[in-house]
Formats: sequence, structure tokens, C-alpha cells
Amino acid sequence: MEKTAVHPYRSIHPPERILMGPGPSNVHPRVLSAMAIPTIGHLDPRFLEIMDQTQELLRELFRTRNRMTFPVSGTGSAAMETALCNILEPGDRLVVGINGVFGGRMRDIGERCGASVHAVESPWGEPIEPARLIEAAGTHQAKAVAVVHAETSTGVHQPVEALGEAFRRTDTLLVVDTVTSLGGLPVEVDRWGIDVCYSGTQKCLSCPPGISPITFGDKALESISRRKRKVQSWYLDVTMIQKYLGSERLYHHTAPINMIYALHEAVRLVLEEGLESRFKRHRAVHELLVEGLEEIPGLEMAVRPEARLPMLNSVRVREGIDEASLRRRLLEEYDIEIGGGLGELKGKTIRIGIMGHSCTRNNVLLLLAALVEIIGKSKRRG
Amino acid sequence: MEKTAVHPYRSIHPPERILMGPGPSNVHPRVLSAMAIPTIGHLDPRFLEIMDQTQELLRELFRTRNRMTFPVSGTGSAAMETALCNILEPGDRLVVGINGVFGGRMRDIGERCGASVHAVESPWGEPIEPARLIEAAGTHQAKAVAVVHAETSTGVHQPVEALGEAFRRTDTLLVVDTVTSLGGLPVEVDRWGIDVCYSGTQKCLSCPPGISPITFGDKALESISRRKRKVQSWYLDVTMIQKYLGSERLYHHTAPINMIYALHEAVRLVLEEGLESRFKRHRAVHELLVEGLEEIPGLEMAVRPEARLPMLNSVRVREGIDEASLRRRLLEEYDIEIGGGLGELKGKTIRIGIMGHSCTRNNVLLLLAALVEIIGKSKRRG
Repeated sequence: MEKTAVHPYRSIHPPERILMGPGPSNVHPRVLSAMAIPTIGHLDPRFLEIMDQTQELLRELFRTRNRMTFPVSGTGSAAMETALCNILEPGDRLVVGINGVFGGRMRDIGERCGASVHAVESPWGEPIEPARLIEAAGTHQAKAVAVVHAETSTGVHQPVEALGEAFRRTDTLLVVDTVTSLGGLPVEVDRWGIDVCYSGTQKCLSCPPGISPITFGDKALESISRRKRKVQSWYLDVTMIQKYLGSERLYHHTAPINMIYALHEAVRLVLEEGLESRFKRHRAVHELLVEGLEEIPGLEMAVRPEARLPMLNSVRVREGIDEASLRRRLLEEYDIEIGGGLGELKGKTIRIGIMGHSCTRNNVLLLLAALVEIIGKSKRRG
Repeated sequence: MEKTAVHPYRSIHPPERILMGPGPSNVHPRVLSAMAIPTIGHLDPRFLEIMDQTQELLRELFRTRNRMTFPVSGTGSAAMETALCNILEPGDRLVVGINGVFGGRMRDIGERCGASVHAVESPWGEPIEPARLIEAAGTHQAKAVAVVHAETSTGVHQPVEALGEAFRRTDTLLVVDTVTSLGGLPVEVDRWGIDVCYSGTQKCLSCPPGISPITFGDKALESISRRKRKVQSWYLDVTMIQKYLGSERLYHHTAPINMIYALHEAVRLVLEEGLESRFKRHRAVHELLVEGLEEIPGLEMAVRPEARLPMLNSVRVREGIDEASLRRRLLEEYDIEIGGGLGELKGKTIRIGIMGHSCTRNNVLLLLAALVEIIGKSKRRG
């Protein structure tokens, strides 16, 4: 074998960015420090204590007593797949609410699990009437109904409570994606009757991506225990993961140890602030942002006020403003990241995230000032 | 909603451990520092540069020119599943070499992909004759043959070169698990003709777990492009991931950004040392360990010398020595973690890892001294 030369790549020096896109959000220094604590083993009793505490912290965050509440060893989409592939078997019927990219992703995953998927669609930018989902669940005898609480691609807030109420005394499982809402908007797993709920870390929890909270209620676990065949994913198989999390402590896969350190600290920060205070902060900063955006010509909130998420703001960009170059200038000249439109909104909207540690009045004031500079300048040039 | 009280859990304070189990290994301070660099966005051009560089660093590590070389957003078992679920469709035939836990895991995953799996088994502690795998591939007209280069459960080194030679001009794909070998033993993806090769980060690369290197050669990618149905896992679907890694930069899932910072630095450290020097270091420290163990009564290397891995040492424990209490004392009194036996070796062996940053003469001298203290004392007591 040839001798390996000293490698030309230097150590990394990423710029400091203000993260106001659809995620990741800025990470609190305490979380970064926790992540850099020296690694210990995933079967070390001291690590298992940290894992137990992390599960308990996640239960408080999800407002649940579900025993099976834990961090999935992958990013939010891995949690989506964990939710669906554990409860679905080939031939099962799934009803999915689709009004954006992430509802569509649930359909795709459901189909890959062999389920027969019925979509209840609304225009992008509009929530889905709960009554339509409830009706479809009945018509199609759905094993599960899945919705996205906070559709990151459009900024729409989907009502969930009526669904839980409707399915609570039936066999239908309610699956709710709270990737973008958890820690920024009320999520009440037990009170609302959600059977499977998952999230991501890089949105309102302001923890780096790579791990994702999930919770399964007893109704979901009972349904899983009646499966006829193994869960199609070995890595995401909850029936095996629960033997590691339970008293057996049976090795399944190696937990992402330092990411769990980070998540532990991130959720501690959320609970220190208090969920209610955190929700109020997101709401107040959102209102400041909306007021400011209304004064900038060529930008318009894409979602009507009653359906808007506070933490993810979809903004329609007037023809004549090149949204890609707007985003590039914000990044290059101001070190501010915002997001572009996804799917059918590509090129038509920008997405402004005010999530977790990024959700501050100062960040919004700065972004608004930068937008006025850029768009003002474009107008004078044109 | 009730007001959330300040949470009782303090910030975490895990002990400093010397990690000499089957992984994770100790993480170099430079890697911990890299991981704590503030997060930027997964679509930020500066992050994409870091991702490009990480892919290039992984190519050097795997000794390959494969374009599709990247970090899977999960731990080593996620990479195993990525390898198998992308190349297998229901009805495909897979031959798996099984002489330990991880070969068995490959069979389980292959079956969950709907493949018909034929196992070629050897006793735990013995490698599998390549000729038997080659014969089975022919007999069963296997689409793929999968083996574990370094069986972490037993410490056995599986020869791979003859397999690549045999399958190079056939349609059969060779899948090799190098979770425990990469960075500690020669792995020559291109020269040996491996079609899909994956690893973990928390073994000889000494990066925290949570991400895992993988590489697909052209023959594997062509086979994937001829699939009749979608890959069953959305999260691990290489046909989608390659659109994020390629020039399109299409968003798939959010990359575990800080874990990639860490991996970039960890592979830089490996290549700075030089692969050859690193292999020599693992070999030399292994020899020191074996010499020392031979002098301790009641401990015996479980694998014959020609079949031994340098970085993972399976040691048979004489009846009368309680291996669980031995490990507990090492952990509690010396802060040294070693591993227990897995599967059919549970209770019968201990596993000593000398991997990456943990692989030092000092660590071995200390462990030997501790073992002498503990086992000596047990003898006197008995």
C-alpha cells in the first residue's frame, strides 16, 4: 500500500451564522459545551442514568407519561419513519393529511411500508379540516391517521385536538408530526390523545440535528405487539429498542452518546424557561416579525393569520424580486440564513424561522433591517 | 396548562473513562472541539464544502474512488441497513457469512428486506473459508454476498480479498462490514473489489457514534438503478441521498451537522498519522496486550493467533472468575471500560478493545496492572 500523504484539508472554520431558516436554529452555547463532554460507553451505568433522565425530560416536553418516550438515533425524518414503520404492515390502511412537503413524505413512507395510503389534501398554505380526516378514517377503516402539526414547508398550523377526541375510543391510531412545533407551540400528547408523536431537535429545541424525540402510547404499543411480521427496519424497530431502554438493557445499536448529552441540556434549557414562557416568546417575536414584514414592499405573509405558525413564516415574494439572490445576499452580506420555498412553492416564497435560541427580538430587528436594505436597494436600481 | 416547574435534573457530569471495550473508543480532544463548533445550515455553501471534503476524506480512508461515498446519518447498524436495503428487493437471494452477532444481524436485516437468505456458518471464533462463500453464491445464484471483516462479537478477522477476486466479473455484489476494522486494519475497497462497504465512527476512527461511513461502487449503483420498487427505507434511500450530495443539492433529510464536523476532524487525524502507521500501532499495542494477558492466570485469548483482530480481543475467562464483576470492578475502581461477551459468548468471554485514540501502550499497561490486581486478589481470596 502507498504511504498516505499528509492531507491537504485544513481543520474546518465555518462562519458564524444567524440561523433563521426552517432549521437548524442556533444552538445555545451550553448545548454545544455539553456535546463536547468526553464520550463514555452506551452501556455504562452512568450513561444509562443520563438516558433515563433524557427520556424523563422528553416526557415533560411531550406532556406525556408514555414509558416508550426516547430519542431516535437519526434526524427528524428517521423519527417519521420510526413512527410509521412500526405501526404499519403491508395491507394496512393509512390516512394522511397532505398540505405540504412533509405530509407528502408521510405518504411516501407509508407506501414503502406496504400500506394502502389515502390522502386527504388541502391547498398548500391551508390547514386540513379535521372532519375530513375523521370521515376518511371511517370510510377507509384506517389503522392510522397521520398529520403534520406544523407543516415546515408552508408555515401552516394544523389543528390536532379534535382528531384525538375522535379516535380515542376507536382502534385508529393518531400519528402527529411535531418536528417544527415541539418546544414552540403547545403539544399535549396525553391530553389530546396522540398515539405516536415525534419531533426533531434542530427546530424549537435548538439542539444540533442527528437525534429526534419520539413517544409511543400504550394503544400504539399494543397494536405493535399484535404485528404479524417483523418491523421492516431493524434499526428503527421499537420492539428491540425497548429492550435496551427497559430493565434488560439489552444492546441493540450504539446510542449517539454525545448527541444525547446535547439533547439533555437542550431540553433542560427549554424546561428552565418554562413551556408557557417559551410559547409566549415565540408568539411575541412572531408578531414583531409580521408587523415588520408588512412594511416591506413586495413581501406578503403567505398564510392567513388564524392558520399561521409562529416559528415558521412563509412569505410570498413579489414577482421581480429574485428570492434566491435575496437569500444569497442575506447569507453573504449579513450572515443570516433564511429558507427558500419547497416543492410547489419553490421560487415563490421565502421561509423565515424564529425557533428556539434563534427566536429573539434582536434577530428579527436585524433581519428586517437587512431586508429593507436589500429590497430598498433593488427597487432604486430597477 | 400547568406552569412547568424548574426541572430537578442537573447538568450532566459523566465520569472520565478509559474506553477499552468494543466501542466507543476515547475521542481525541480535537474531535470533541470540532463537534462543538456552532452549527450552520445543511444547505449553507460553506457546509456543503465541509461535506464534500468529508466525502473525499472518507474515500481516502476506504481507499476508493467511488463517487457515492458518504456518512450515513445514523450509527453503524444504520449503515448496515443502508447497505442491504438499497441492494435487496423481495425475492432476491443473499448469502451471509455468520460466525458471530453481526453476521446474524445481517441475516435479520436481509430477511426484513424480503430477501431469501442463505447462511454460511462457522463456529464463533473461527473465520469462514472464502471458498465456501463463493460456492454458496454460485449454488444459490446470490445477488449479494455479505461478510463481516472484523466480527466485533468474537474478535475474528475475516479474509475478504479472495471474495472480491471471485465476484469481480460476475453480477454478484460483495458487501463488507468494516465497522470495527476501518482505520485499524487495511481496508482496500477498490483493490479488493468490494461493492458496498460501510463502517462505524466509534471504533478505530475514535469519533463519537451517530454517523457512519459508507461507500457504493458503480456495480452496486447500477444494480440499484435497475430496482423494480422503491427502497423500503425512505431515510436510508441512496437514490434520494445522492441528489443531495450531487450537484442538484436537493434537500433530502437534515444532515447531522456537528457530527460531520467531528467526523471531518477524526478522519483528518487518521490521515495525518498515516494509514500504515496507524495499522502498525494497532498491531504493536495488540502484541503488548497479548503478551501481558498470557501472564495472567485464568485469562486466555479466545481466537487463534492467525485469525485474531488486533483492535478487538476476545478473552476467555476461566470458570470461577465472574466476568461481570471483573468488568464492574474495572469500571468502578479504575474507570476502565471493557466489554462482556455477546450472544453465545455471554458470561464466557471479555472483550478488550484497543481502537484508535484508545490504542496506546499506556492504556494497555494500566489495564494489565488493574487485571493483575483484581484477579490476583480474587485468587488470594479464593
